[in-house]
Amino acid sequence: METRKKFAVVLAGCGVYDGAEIHEATLTLLAIDKAGYSYQCFAPNIPQHHVMNHLTGKEVVETRNVLVEAARIARGKIKPLSEFLAEDFDILIFPGGFGVAKNLCTLAFDGPDCTVNRDVELAIIHMHKAGKPIGALCIAPALLARVIEGATVTIGNDEGTVISIEKMGGIHQEKNHGEVTIDRKNKLVTTPCYMLNATISQIELGANQVVKTLLSL
Amino acid sequence: METRKKFAVVLAGCGVYDGAEIHEATLTLLAIDKAGYSYQCFAPNIPQHHVMNHLTGKEVVETRNVLVEAARIARGKIKPLSEFLAEDFDILIFPGGFGVAKNLCTLAFDGPDCTVNRDVELAIIHMHKAGKPIGALCIAPALLARVIEGATVTIGNDEGTVISIEKMGGIHQEKNHGEVTIDRKNKLVTTPCYMLNATISQIELGANQVVKTLLSL
Repeated sequence: METRKKFAVVLAGCGVYDGAEIHEATLTLLAIDKAGYSYQCFAPNIPQHHVMNHLTGKEVVETRNVLVEAARIARGKIKPLSEFLAEDFDILIFPGGFGVAKNLCTLAFDGPDCTVNRDVELAIIHMHKAGKPIGALCIAPALLARVIEGATVTIGNDEGTVISIEKMGGIHQEKNHGEVTIDRKNKLVTTPCYMLNATISQIELGANQVVKTLLSL
Repeated sequence: METRKKFAVVLAGCGVYDGAEIHEATLTLLAIDKAGYSYQCFAPNIPQHHVMNHLTGKEVVETRNVLVEAARIARGKIKPLSEFLAEDFDILIFPGGFGVAKNLCTLAFDGPDCTVNRDVELAIIHMHKAGKPIGALCIAPALLARVIEGATVTIGNDEGTVISIEKMGGIHQEKNHGEVTIDRKNKLVTTPCYMLNATISQIELGANQVVKTLLSL
């Protein structure tokens, strides 16, 4: 019988500029495994907003699928987010990357007027209604501010994003590396990661702190 | 003045089935950073052998470039391997993934008769001649066996690969998770990682042990 807490990890593709930030995603999985818990990766089965050449930083004419690319991080062990059931999981967590603001919602283009992918929105709403904790790293806390009214989150200190979060009705707390914002009422735990200029060790610290704090709620 | 030891990390793309294994690559970078040292990523500027859909495990009709895809793991901070100079680095390290056996050499297709990409071969030869340590994870130790005569390495216990290594003149030692084979004469440190059925925590253990042992040579 499986009695360990199960995390659902939602990935936004594979690569910081058009998908999930790879270090944040990998170190989230590591933090969960090291804490002695299990995880299942998910991603929406939709085309990426676009494809970026990560060497030049320029957009290229190519189409890629969020679920198929996220499978690279998950080593093939990933499910379409449409199959996510809140009753099967104890905790939901979103690593960051521009893909969160481009594929999971439209924050990168529409700011505070952004819309959220329907599967992402439902996953957040169902976990929230069930009173289960939700974690988010980097830019992903903005998703929570969009979906959960009055959510208190951190994305570090990026002024434009802070304004968007506040316009969406969220409350922002400025935080540094490895620090988390805890919204006890809504059971949300968030941390800045690469929204601040960071080393990979600082990403590990942030991922560990989020996972540890989620488990304490 | 920069006096910290510098690692050159060679990536074979981005994704276990056609490129660099993402967890091994990320956790190698983390191990280096946590040990207090710096790194520069490199990859050959060549087309990938092929592109695999990591969800289905099937080849797809698409072309991708090893350097451009590896830039996803390196967050854009990567150089073509042709620009690598052994004099600029203290230690060379190769994370694994099928891309090592498909893009950096032809082991996946030609077994012990494989050829090695010229930039990869030169990087190994120049570091070896300079008496500098070289590390390799997963399938990448086979590269060392191909380039350095009589290299002693481990890739875990995969029978076919062990036979290939021995036919290339290498010596294989069977090792388990987090264990390393040290070839003191050639200054090589190798570990199995995902060549064994592994958890992500076991990959961290392997990467840490290789980095730690390389620094002790």
